[in-house]
This record gives sequence, structure tokens and C-alpha cells, in this order.
Amino acid sequence: MTRALILFAHGARAATWAAPFERLRELTQARVPGVPVSLAFLELMEPRLPERVAELAAQGVTAVTVVPVFLGQGGHLLRDLPLIVEQLRLDHPGMAISVSGAVGEDPSVLAAMTDFCVAQL
Amino acid sequence: MTRALILFAHGARAATWAAPFERLRELTQARVPGVPVSLAFLELMEPRLPERVAELAAQGVTAVTVVPVFLGQGGHLLRDLPLIVEQLRLDHPGMAISVSGAVGEDPSVLAAMTDFCVAQL
Repeated sequence: MTRALILFAHGARAATWAAPFERLRELTQARVPGVPVSLAFLELMEPRLPERVAELAAQGVTAVTVVPVFLGQGGHLLRDLPLIVEQLRLDHPGMAISVSGAVGEDPSVLAAMTDFCVAQL
Repeated sequence: MTRALILFAHGARAATWAAPFERLRELTQARVPGVPVSLAFLELMEPRLPERVAELAAQGVTAVTVVPVFLGQGGHLLRDLPLIVEQLRLDHPGMAISVSGAVGEDPSVLAAMTDFCVAQL
């Protein structure tokens, strides 16, 4: 099994928006040097998730973990992402695709966000 | 000076989306019991920021810190929020309104998100 990690973000028109996601990708990649870590977007930015998964499949990756870098579970994660993943599983039957919870719902992430909010006062 | 903290989030159609923001509000409020901490949204959810600031002004709050609970600086933070805050300063000349950086660009928040991403493998 050849694994890969995809950090899945919303995307935005402003290029500045991608900076912390690219930073997150770098930080994560440094921690798991043997596993390719890449970004993919829902909309407005490239690459989109299907394009990224197709690239990884072409490279021989057989197991992908998608981490939604979203603050909460809105329609994008409840509706859009499951439909995209369902189609990806049809398109890549030899690939195991798992999807984690949203980054913003993790207790440690919430704790760090709390520290930041308190520090702004 | 009577202070208040507003956690400013995007908003979504799905009610589930607000859960981590409400949790963040509770966690932050517990850390600063003497300062009212509330949520306000850019769109799709209530209350919007102008409504929340007007409520706080009516309660005698004279200094508000707005913390954007966004992952990155896209058009909403670069363009929409500054326009809203400019109008709020005209509408509430006796109130000091400051805006912090985006939660998602904080190094400690990024470190916690990195831990989460690595743990999904």
C-alpha cells in the first residue's frame, strides 16, 4: 500500500488565502517525510480534489487520506465532499479513500484557537 | 472602558456548521469571565456583525475586539470586513473597534492543525 495525505480546503479568489494552507502542508510534510502531502481545493483554486487524486493514482498511490481543513461541518463537508468522494471511489476502484473529521472540530485545535482569541484582548 | 470580544465567522446554511464556533466561544468566555464574548457572522447566519456591535454599544461597551475565526485571509477579510468595520466606526464614533489577524494564521493554531493532520495517517 502506497499512502498519500491530501489537505482539502475550500479555495478563494484571493491568492493570499492559500498561504496558511501551504504552510500547513509544509509543516505536515516535514513530519511525515515518507508520505506525499498535498493540497486540493473544493472550488476557486487549483488543483481540485479529483485532479489531485487522479495524479496520485497515476503515481501508484493506493490509499489516500483526505483531511478537510475546514473550521466546521457545513454543506461543503456534509454534502459536496461525500458526493465527490463517492465519484472518486467509482473512478479509482483500486484506491482506498478515507476522509477524516474537520480540522476545526479537533479539541487541540480548538484549544489553540481559544488561546489566540484570549490573547487578542 | 468596557470591553467585549467578538468572534467573527463566515456563517453557513447548515446549522451544524456553527457548533465548533459556539464551542470556541464557550471556551474563550470561560477564560475571560469579565468580558462578554459573542459570535457574529458575515453571512447566512445571525447575528451579523453590525447587529452585534449595536447591541454591545447599547449595553455600554466602548471597546470591541473582533477576532476573525477564518483559516486564511481571502476576500472576506481583505475586502468585506474592512468595509463593515469602516461603517461601524462611523455609526459608533464612541466605540474603539480593533480587528485581529485570522485565527488560522496563528503559529500555535497551525501547529495544532499539523498534529491533527499527521494523526489522521
